[in-house]
Amino acid sequence: MIELLKRHIGEPLDSLMTPMPVIDEDRLAANIARVQSYMDEHELAFRPHIKTHKIPALAAQQVKAGARGINCQKVTEAEVFADAGFDDILITFNLMGHERLDRLQALNDRIGDLKVVADSAVTIAGLSAQFAGAKPLKVLVECDTGGGRCGVQTPERALELARLIAGSDGLSFVGLLTYPKAKGETETEAFFRAAMALLDAEGIDCPIRSNGGTPSLFSAHLVPSATEHRAGTYIYNDRSIVRAGHVGLEDCAMQILATVVSRPTGDRAVIDAGSKTLTSDLLGFADFGHVVEYPQASIIGLSEEHGTIDLSACTGGRPEIGERIRIIPNHTCVVTNLFDALAFHRDGKVTRVEKVAARGLVW
Amino acid sequence: MIELLKRHIGEPLDSLMTPMPVIDEDRLAANIARVQSYMDEHELAFRPHIKTHKIPALAAQQVKAGARGINCQKVTEAEVFADAGFDDILITFNLMGHERLDRLQALNDRIGDLKVVADSAVTIAGLSAQFAGAKPLKVLVECDTGGGRCGVQTPERALELARLIAGSDGLSFVGLLTYPKAKGETETEAFFRAAMALLDAEGIDCPIRSNGGTPSLFSAHLVPSATEHRAGTYIYNDRSIVRAGHVGLEDCAMQILATVVSRPTGDRAVIDAGSKTLTSDLLGFADFGHVVEYPQASIIGLSEEHGTIDLSACTGGRPEIGERIRIIPNHTCVVTNLFDALAFHRDGKVTRVEKVAARGLVW
Repeated sequence: MIELLKRHIGEPLDSLMTPMPVIDEDRLAANIARVQSYMDEHELAFRPHIKTHKIPALAAQQVKAGARGINCQKVTEAEVFADAGFDDILITFNLMGHERLDRLQALNDRIGDLKVVADSAVTIAGLSAQFAGAKPLKVLVECDTGGGRCGVQTPERALELARLIAGSDGLSFVGLLTYPKAKGETETEAFFRAAMALLDAEGIDCPIRSNGGTPSLFSAHLVPSATEHRAGTYIYNDRSIVRAGHVGLEDCAMQILATVVSRPTGDRAVIDAGSKTLTSDLLGFADFGHVVEYPQASIIGLSEEHGTIDLSACTGGRPEIGERIRIIPNHTCVVTNLFDALAFHRDGKVTRVEKVAARGLVW
Repeated sequence: MIELLKRHIGEPLDSLMTPMPVIDEDRLAANIARVQSYMDEHELAFRPHIKTHKIPALAAQQVKAGARGINCQKVTEAEVFADAGFDDILITFNLMGHERLDRLQALNDRIGDLKVVADSAVTIAGLSAQFAGAKPLKVLVECDTGGGRCGVQTPERALELARLIAGSDGLSFVGLLTYPKAKGETETEAFFRAAMALLDAEGIDCPIRSNGGTPSLFSAHLVPSATEHRAGTYIYNDRSIVRAGHVGLEDCAMQILATVVSRPTGDRAVIDAGSKTLTSDLLGFADFGHVVEYPQASIIGLSEEHGTIDLSACTGGRPEIGERIRIIPNHTCVVTNLFDALAFHRDGKVTRVEKVAARGLVW
């Protein structure tokens, strides 16, 4: 597929077949620059999460702008980025399983600065059993500061696990990490501060306090205890990030090109983008994406390769069969994950095609 | 990835890393046999939709059992199956766009029996412009018999389009097609019957009346005007099909192996399967899949690589960190589309690994 797409480089964007996610080069560059500038201003190390793009060339743009290292969610993703030369990788996952840990160890042996997280004695025991006698693995304790996913529930438990890591063969404790809830700055700061005080009282060094998330990205400075911030979605932005404030629809670098293939009734259009293009991620919205040309239109239903649009609220024109529309997705990160390659554009022309190199990897 | 998986052939199923969708060979074979037997009994031609598996070897099992041809949704999918030797392919999509139609024509030239659908004069004009002077393309008129997606709204309009197809260079009218709503047999039969009467009155032959869908599959005989039925999901089944009746959880051939990676609280477990494994398809359910070992557990939230499970209703045991669980997904067809390869098993051992050959194709 990538070869087919590459034939369009230099051609008009509209020469691409649909459905196809395309990335606006200028918006992409502006998103990277704006966030890096904010982080620089607040003296926060910035660690982009590559889950959003899974493309080494984009991580290189992020690092060139000033990012310090990258964030992956899987060992196999990290391998792709290590192959591309990235040397500072944080994997924010409780990693377990023989095959996965073997690969993690091989990865640790070949890059300079690999870090992982743990939130239980079981995870720590597994890591220690693997890394005892090998090059030590850096481990952060994951803290649940309100996000309600993984993480220890109290600063006291963070201390216990830090102690356990520090005392485990093959492991080195390097800090705390949270994936917070939106607008959870107060809770996160309180948790970090309390845990740091407990660690300090025992003389355990805690150089990294890693905070994260795009929706509350521009509030990262409200967590002064944090030393770094992680974010992924900001590079493209999407409808959910627009809703969070701070950015507008014009800051969304990813749009999905789609074609109206049917107009069964006056109020209904059907496009060639369904759940295998847009995904079913609603993220609190009532419909499946924002139609740029017809903002009053509502993508009310998705089957796998069809999207059904309700046009009844459209007071202006309505799209005709064969017409192309552009959609800003609810959630970019899951769209990326459906396509083997994406096309980029500037001034209405295709500039490049990038393979989504870390897509479809497991473990 | 496929090479990594193939190393596990012959090994215990539990040797596979998670998250991983796996297919039970015996359930798969039983699902194929049961549906084919029903169709044979009712003298309906059966045309499996390959969207569910996208694997030529499985389509071969379906055809070997008695299916007559296959159903694809994209030209590029059909190409993969044509490469694998399938000669009777129906693409149920209003196909348009220069590149797509060029490929469609090349496909028509190399297989014996290619058919597509159209529900508008625009689609028909595009097909005719492409196929005029070439080997004629067979076209069915898509009818909206209550499904509310694509399709002409009335039998009278079906007649008009049939007339248009029959009178268009390069095209041949071969029948009617619907993707009906669940339990829409009465409406579908009435629509087909009325359209057939109109066509008959004009002397237009209408050899194919194609009905479809898995949820109402075992009511296909309630549409006696239909000559064939199309269905995809039945080969694996999933939670949504179980809800529709006729099959049970024990008939679901696909399960997703996942590992509990965190137990932050007594009531919360986090697994390594998120929306990039299970997808966010709810299909009317309140949660994201059925946990086989803990049926009272509820997968209440998905982030991309984490699934959050509420255990508060579990009256028996609760899973521990490191424990493996199996999940029956809400919707199999979208899970397939996320993985480059799937593993199959029988008697607790991995039997084979199949590449999801038509995954990630566009157009």
